Amino acid sequence: METKVKLKVLRELMQQKGINAWIVPSGDPHQSEYVADHWKARAWISGFSGSAGVCVITSDKAGLWTDSRYWLQAASELEDSGIELFKMFSPGVPDYQTWLLDELSDGAVLGFDGSLLSVREVTAISKRLSSKNISLSYGEDLTGMIWQDRPAIPQEPAMMLAEEYAGESVTSKIERVRTEMQKNLVDYHVISALDEIAWLFNIRGKDVKYNPVVISNAFLSKDGVNLFVNKTKLNDELIAFMKTCGVTIFHYEDILGYLAGLEADKKVLIDPGKVSQKIKDAINCQVQEGKSIVTYLKAIKNQVEQEGIRQAHIQDGAALVSWIFWMKQQVGKIELDEYTAGEKLGEFRAEGDKFQGLSFTPIIGFRGNGAIVHYSAKPDTARKIEPGGILLVDSGGQYLNGTTDVTRTFSLGNITEEERYYFTLVLAGHIDLARAVFPKGTSGAMLDAYTRTPLWREKKNYGHGTGHGVGHFLGVHEGPQNISPKSIYPILPGSVTTDEPGMYLEGKFGIRTENILICQTLETTEYGEFCCFETVTLCPISRELINKDMLTSEQIAWLDNYHAMVFEKLSPLLEPDVTEWIRKETLPL
Amino acid sequence: METKVKLKVLRELMQQKGINAWIVPSGDPHQSEYVADHWKARAWISGFSGSAGVCVITSDKAGLWTDSRYWLQAASELEDSGIELFKMFSPGVPDYQTWLLDELSDGAVLGFDGSLLSVREVTAISKRLSSKNISLSYGEDLTGMIWQDRPAIPQEPAMMLAEEYAGESVTSKIERVRTEMQKNLVDYHVISALDEIAWLFNIRGKDVKYNPVVISNAFLSKDGVNLFVNKTKLNDELIAFMKTCGVTIFHYEDILGYLAGLEADKKVLIDPGKVSQKIKDAINCQVQEGKSIVTYLKAIKNQVEQEGIRQAHIQDGAALVSWIFWMKQQVGKIELDEYTAGEKLGEFRAEGDKFQGLSFTPIIGFRGNGAIVHYSAKPDTARKIEPGGILLVDSGGQYLNGTTDVTRTFSLGNITEEERYYFTLVLAGHIDLARAVFPKGTSGAMLDAYTRTPLWREKKNYGHGTGHGVGHFLGVHEGPQNISPKSIYPILPGSVTTDEPGMYLEGKFGIRTENILICQTLETTEYGEFCCFETVTLCPISRELINKDMLTSEQIAWLDNYHAMVFEKLSPLLEPDVTEWIRKETLPL
Repeated sequence: METKVKLKVLRELMQQKGINAWIVPSGDPHQSEYVADHWKARAWISGFSGSAGVCVITSDKAGLWTDSRYWLQAASELEDSGIELFKMFSPGVPDYQTWLLDELSDGAVLGFDGSLLSVREVTAISKRLSSKNISLSYGEDLTGMIWQDRPAIPQEPAMMLAEEYAGESVTSKIERVRTEMQKNLVDYHVISALDEIAWLFNIRGKDVKYNPVVISNAFLSKDGVNLFVNKTKLNDELIAFMKTCGVTIFHYEDILGYLAGLEADKKVLIDPGKVSQKIKDAINCQVQEGKSIVTYLKAIKNQVEQEGIRQAHIQDGAALVSWIFWMKQQVGKIELDEYTAGEKLGEFRAEGDKFQGLSFTPIIGFRGNGAIVHYSAKPDTARKIEPGGILLVDSGGQYLNGTTDVTRTFSLGNITEEERYYFTLVLAGHIDLARAVFPKGTSGAMLDAYTRTPLWREKKNYGHGTGHGVGHFLGVHEGPQNISPKSIYPILPGSVTTDEPGMYLEGKFGIRTENILICQTLETTEYGEFCCFETVTLCPISRELINKDMLTSEQIAWLDNYHAMVFEKLSPLLEPDVTEWIRKETLPL
Repeated sequence: METKVKLKVLRELMQQKGINAWIVPSGDPHQSEYVADHWKARAWISGFSGSAGVCVITSDKAGLWTDSRYWLQAASELEDSGIELFKMFSPGVPDYQTWLLDELSDGAVLGFDGSLLSVREVTAISKRLSSKNISLSYGEDLTGMIWQDRPAIPQEPAMMLAEEYAGESVTSKIERVRTEMQKNLVDYHVISALDEIAWLFNIRGKDVKYNPVVISNAFLSKDGVNLFVNKTKLNDELIAFMKTCGVTIFHYEDILGYLAGLEADKKVLIDPGKVSQKIKDAINCQVQEGKSIVTYLKAIKNQVEQEGIRQAHIQDGAALVSWIFWMKQQVGKIELDEYTAGEKLGEFRAEGDKFQGLSFTPIIGFRGNGAIVHYSAKPDTARKIEPGGILLVDSGGQYLNGTTDVTRTFSLGNITEEERYYFTLVLAGHIDLARAVFPKGTSGAMLDAYTRTPLWREKKNYGHGTGHGVGHFLGVHEGPQNISPKSIYPILPGSVTTDEPGMYLEGKFGIRTENILICQTLETTEYGEFCCFETVTLCPISRELINKDMLTSEQIAWLDNYHAMVFEKLSPLLEPDVTEWIRKETLPL
């Protein structure tokens, strides 16, 4: 079907159902960052294939809202579709709710699939549109009704993550969640976030690209645990194991019916940002909205997870260093572009014995493309990589023992003083965060100041956050903590966060240096518990791009120390010529 | 009447009114920091004279909750009163609401004077006690009914603050408030905060100690402005002036009746943190709770106010420097204690031709007393000041053109390396904030990190905020901005905030260095508008307490530059011997 035909069929159905406008968001029923094809309804109906965006259809108009990363792509993919492109966050461009307030008349009905929006999102929409007395209809999935050849829900086999990697038994995790449930005075807890379920049950899967999760929902009570998952995903060993943990397996689809059968006087905890409106509506007893318990437990990595993360970074660092050496050797000699270079990097990573796949689409930007923050090279439009200029590479892998995310910027020749200046400014900020000493519980906002200060002094800044939480063989982005100007959440011992300041000069180059940091307790004094960061990412930081005069002696000492660790940990895994190269790269400045 | 008798009379009245517990807070109907004697009901009923605390009386028990500053004093003042002291924030000590939940039975009635608690406070109490079905009764002031010889509401004359000091006309300020009211879609706005009213009407008064305000309420509509104030406070000139500004004067007591007469379909904006529950209850139309508009306008000082603040600091600095010199000359020669030294400092300040009084009770702590953060010397218990040891002095004045607040720590001989070490750590943090460069709108929390970093690196910290907003010939503490680990409010150009890190070694000494900073725009680049701080406080920072090796060259350069400015601005006002002294004190390090 063409987009125009799809819209026509949808509009007929909307009219039949008495719905005046229909929203098709990008999400899935688990509020996932990466979505299985089965839920790519927005891409299907609009023809726009980017990962972020929302499509809204009224009886005579249709709009697609997406951010600047996708404007070119969306304009091309929406051509002749009858869908207008709205450039999100552009001055004068209304957001879709403002647009709906204009388009819909008083008393209109707005519809969407209630499983695709979180309770928080639906509450916000409802509040926003209340001034016009607009009612919401989200019981039925109209898009699904007309979607022929819709891909099935993924049915990839799940695997057990052994305790030698997870570091804590399922039984112990369940007990800890129950303790928090008691503190929250709730009887039940529904969990929809796939990474939370994977952590709680020590399972991993392949249902979703980049995130090793199993599509499912979980339900905990004081004495029972139910996992709602397609049983074909679980082998006999896993089923037996779940039984020993007291976990009852239900069909994935059974969750709604199960929730409808709860005793009316009980209380269920749900996280409004992580559970769909459809789940909430199915609950037939009291609902208490609150923070998801697993988010906070999962964020603090145990000693086994931490050691796994260190080990994963040795494999990952060896692959990245080998690739950088290879790139420096091959540039100008063979045909290379941003896309093929990324494929080659993937091959190096795949050599690791614990490698399980990439943790996200690599961002490889040469010269001016490095300045496009969310750039992702496509095979047909990737830029040729030639001698001269700098290359920004942001990439990561999934390993049985951890998740990596690392950015390096390195030169392919002809370094300019301007590049050195910006590279060193960014590095100074990176180091000041990495070597910070701070009281336990210091907020991400306060720590963000460390990274930006060298740039601020030069009246410069970068437009993104400084760091995000990272999972343990799970999502490369996870909460609750992050390091950014607005982050009030405390940074706690055992949490894992990136340190990735950058500078982007449009049309010229992009610079970013990213390592993963584990927060560790340093010392407890009469003034409280003080923390520091342990850097686990292992890859030399391009010395040829450093202007040593711009660094303090403390910053230089940190870098020399870091480089010594990189050499010590990586050299045993490297080919002799690579070892020889990083020996020079990691000498004291 | 003795406390016991007062409690007996109150309990009889409570029984008569069907009230099971009665709260007597410390506040006034304007949520003031400093309270006129008329509203010192808590001090009257309990006998505890400290500035902070709350008294709760049930039919058979009575408790007083206050923080650690007042535990000794309260224990002594409450002796034989029948009131139990609860040490607020001590481990295991319930707050008064938790205590009430224990003491009151289901369905009990809790009473208090609704004019003394803000809407926000009453909402919190109500929410907290809802689990026990406790209802609130706050229409009558039982304490007032039994309070014989209650001091009258102050009737001090008000004065007009000329535009040469205020920098903006009343008409212009009213228009700006109205513009914001329109944006908030409200018809009316009630203002109860006395400093907000003083700012809006360019009036000052003497009703309250330390805060030059006039007890009153204000009401704005689209075309009218009412000031509810005792008319005897206004001279003919002020009455005439108010008339030209379109301001109608009502009696102070008329506000409740006036609000009761508003048209039911109109909407009134009130700040729930600044308006009393009694005011809210009187409003006979829709209430919209939101941030007080004047708070935000008042925080950004205009050019005239800023220049006035600079000038006020010259007078204030000259007084403080002259006093420090005098102290250093006299110590060991004449009888001196923390209290008499403070009196003498007040005499030096009073010589300024624009001086209007102190801005708060000076904190003068010698040796170990300097480590008591909120220490205030009393005539009978003040410590003798002798040669040897360091003195912490935190003080400030009100001037027609500005408010000051400055802390210096200086030596009276026998300096130890330990004192130098802590003094320099604190100074390094002070300087790093003073010389910060940051994007407009950076939060107070991010800036707080600057001051603490040198201390954190040594695994040390201080337990108070780094800085508070300061008024222009108004409250020495004002919002909305502050610099502290939890402050998400942005620091904006024109705002005035203190920079006052410290270190406190129990029983040994306290150190704090405090200057007032005005946020200024530095430069707008492609990365946005960048700001810096202008330091306006003028007083040398004790060079004898500095360990120069602990400062960076940038910190030393800042200090040398600051000292040069101090000498240049103060020396014309000083006696020759003082000038000669500060010439040496302000030489480059």
